[in-house]
Amino acid sequence: MIEPRTLPGFMELLPSDQVLFNNIKDTIKRNYEKFGFLPLDTPVLESSEVLLAKAGGETEKQIYQFKKGDNDLCMRFDLTVPLAKYVAANYNELSFPFARYQIDKVYRGERPQKGRFREFYQCDIDVIGRGELSLAYDAEIPCIMYNIFKELNIGDFTIQISNRKLLLGIIEDLGLNDLSIELLRLIDKKSKIGDENFINTLRIDYKVDEQKLNVLLSFLNIKGSVNEQLSKLNKLGITNEKYVLGLKELTTVIGFIQKFGVNAEYYTIDLTIARGLDYYTGTVYETFIKGYENIGSVCSGGRYDNLAEYYTKEKLPGVGMSIGLTRLFYQLKENGLLKKQYMSNSKCIVLPMGEEYLENCIALGNTLRANNINTTTYLDNAKFKTKLQYAIRSKVKYAIFVGEDEVKGNYYTIKDLENEKQEQLTLDKLLEILTKD
Amino acid sequence: MIEPRTLPGFMELLPSDQVLFNNIKDTIKRNYEKFGFLPLDTPVLESSEVLLAKAGGETEKQIYQFKKGDNDLCMRFDLTVPLAKYVAANYNELSFPFARYQIDKVYRGERPQKGRFREFYQCDIDVIGRGELSLAYDAEIPCIMYNIFKELNIGDFTIQISNRKLLLGIIEDLGLNDLSIELLRLIDKKSKIGDENFINTLRIDYKVDEQKLNVLLSFLNIKGSVNEQLSKLNKLGITNEKYVLGLKELTTVIGFIQKFGVNAEYYTIDLTIARGLDYYTGTVYETFIKGYENIGSVCSGGRYDNLAEYYTKEKLPGVGMSIGLTRLFYQLKENGLLKKQYMSNSKCIVLPMGEEYLENCIALGNTLRANNINTTTYLDNAKFKTKLQYAIRSKVKYAIFVGEDEVKGNYYTIKDLENEKQEQLTLDKLLEILTKD
Repeated sequence: MIEPRTLPGFMELLPSDQVLFNNIKDTIKRNYEKFGFLPLDTPVLESSEVLLAKAGGETEKQIYQFKKGDNDLCMRFDLTVPLAKYVAANYNELSFPFARYQIDKVYRGERPQKGRFREFYQCDIDVIGRGELSLAYDAEIPCIMYNIFKELNIGDFTIQISNRKLLLGIIEDLGLNDLSIELLRLIDKKSKIGDENFINTLRIDYKVDEQKLNVLLSFLNIKGSVNEQLSKLNKLGITNEKYVLGLKELTTVIGFIQKFGVNAEYYTIDLTIARGLDYYTGTVYETFIKGYENIGSVCSGGRYDNLAEYYTKEKLPGVGMSIGLTRLFYQLKENGLLKKQYMSNSKCIVLPMGEEYLENCIALGNTLRANNINTTTYLDNAKFKTKLQYAIRSKVKYAIFVGEDEVKGNYYTIKDLENEKQEQLTLDKLLEILTKD
Repeated sequence: MIEPRTLPGFMELLPSDQVLFNNIKDTIKRNYEKFGFLPLDTPVLESSEVLLAKAGGETEKQIYQFKKGDNDLCMRFDLTVPLAKYVAANYNELSFPFARYQIDKVYRGERPQKGRFREFYQCDIDVIGRGELSLAYDAEIPCIMYNIFKELNIGDFTIQISNRKLLLGIIEDLGLNDLSIELLRLIDKKSKIGDENFINTLRIDYKVDEQKLNVLLSFLNIKGSVNEQLSKLNKLGITNEKYVLGLKELTTVIGFIQKFGVNAEYYTIDLTIARGLDYYTGTVYETFIKGYENIGSVCSGGRYDNLAEYYTKEKLPGVGMSIGLTRLFYQLKENGLLKKQYMSNSKCIVLPMGEEYLENCIALGNTLRANNINTTTYLDNAKFKTKLQYAIRSKVKYAIFVGEDEVKGNYYTIKDLENEKQEQLTLDKLLEILTKD
């Protein structure tokens, strides 16, 4: 006998949690499709040569890589590299701007720990342009995420937006280019380590003088409405070319976000977003759930200049965001933020009061499903108590009983399992209740 | 520069085909849920010790197995072994009968050839009982498949049903038990090799005498309606215990199938179904598309006595069927059976007649989506011809133009891209058309 265990770092849910998980996944998918994004479904396994064209260092160590016959294979570790491969390979078949989504599992052999997974869902959207891509897409992407998090109804949230050119431009302007990697790392950690630590590190470790420190701090700490923030960024009077371009881009993107109807309470400019060191080249995003900022960003992304430089000479700029669904679900559950009302795919479960009513139950199931009502029929032979227990544990809303009285009287007994209310209804009334609810 | 290639045996579709593929996948999922089946999402990677508890021979050779650190890992090669592990591991948390579906990719390192895949979707449904399981479930499962293939609308189909006890019983009754493995293999191939070859092999290779041959042939060739077939199986007068039980089970299952409302034209009894040698113990199913029987069975399964004997002492009988979606899709495409009308997730694409109308396009997109109409807005700067070409290649039904005349006149120009008909409509009329269509 082998112990039926699941590997650590691999999420495997009980059915009621799986229903909740899938509800979130379906909400994300529905919204991606509402904006006309096309589905992709690339392989989990790729040739190592292809998948590792760019990778190196920490990422490569975590990858599940192995040989089968003569093939050196990798399990994908994100959905971006497969997208780059796909766009380069199908360049002539695709229409640009190419807007795709992919909701799929990726694999990283990290040391497993609380809230870290080796197999996890990424829910990616990206728009890829041919040569150029309008900044309007930098606004459409967070607008889609806004719609998703509104619909998920897991609390208030803030989409934080910046443009990396601003940060790079001000570093350049202050003559701190030699320190840019260290500074970006430090700024990315600013909210975690606190202002005092941040300032001390700049002063002592990096020997940044007071005047430069003040410019940097007044830049990073700009507050107010987005329009006030933009105006203050303008008034800093920085003439560095990169900075000026970044501010122009950010202003354009914010303008479009307003036109996309994103409520002003749900987004802000946060100039401390650095998001990695070399991939993003313009707009960058992070998203935080209010009151649960410690969870970290639940949806991030940005604009990049060139998606697929390792596979093609074509210039392919893009912008995208991604929800780390497995980790998000884990955190929502840990923090009691999951809405528990819908834990079954079924609206009702039909229970025969004896073997002789199985036929009537099957017939009722046929009718309900023909009316688009998801219905479980309990077909096994068991005591009534066992059947009712099954219905309650299934977390469906209604149990419907069919027995001697019901068949003779040509009605159905329906029990609302939430409030325990029980009624006797004709088929028409039953359909009415189950359809509207 | 690395060539952006995809591994042979891995299906990677262009977006329009992916939309068709996903439509089929969604139809399958929707029907599984309509019958109240619960979703499972088990890991792709499992410990080799767990996944290979039962495997051996041919299967094991095909498995993607590798080491990472101290772990010996396997990629799942089906969804049944993970189900067995899951049910054994979560036995006390689950309600029985446990009805689950899983639609997911599995991996087999087969030699790649036309129509054979190394990564492919299986769409499984199974009901697992605790100790016992009603034969009514042996009828519910093919009823669900009937609903799916009706809705897929890919042509007429036949669900072939048998019970393995009949075949095993008649072999036992004829005193041919020593040959049972060879006979089952041969019977399974009967329709492929033809009657003459079949009979000659029995006569010459297996030295089956004429009287026994005649009983076997009259059994295998029973024709007529299912009720006639059942009656003829009765009249064969075979008293073997296994045969009698098999006939009783088959009669019960067929009775339930009728109650489930499956149209009599869509199922039949076929006594030649053997389906492997040791797993299935009762009801067995195969499904063929009429006129395309050469594709092979597109949906198969059966009843088994014990799901998880390698992981638990609990007896867990079950019944299930599976659609091999990747192979089915490939065959539908090869045979021109795919319905091509819906090749985009979007109902319409909104095209600005110039940069200055981007804002109006975004506003219209907001409104349409608020009315649950999937809408693409074309946000890039391009010539009008390029934009229209994009709409046509996207295979959406409608293009909507917004330019100077439209904004001044407070209307929208909508073009039906199928019939090229163009109209000028107010927002109300536009919503009416896009909502009803």
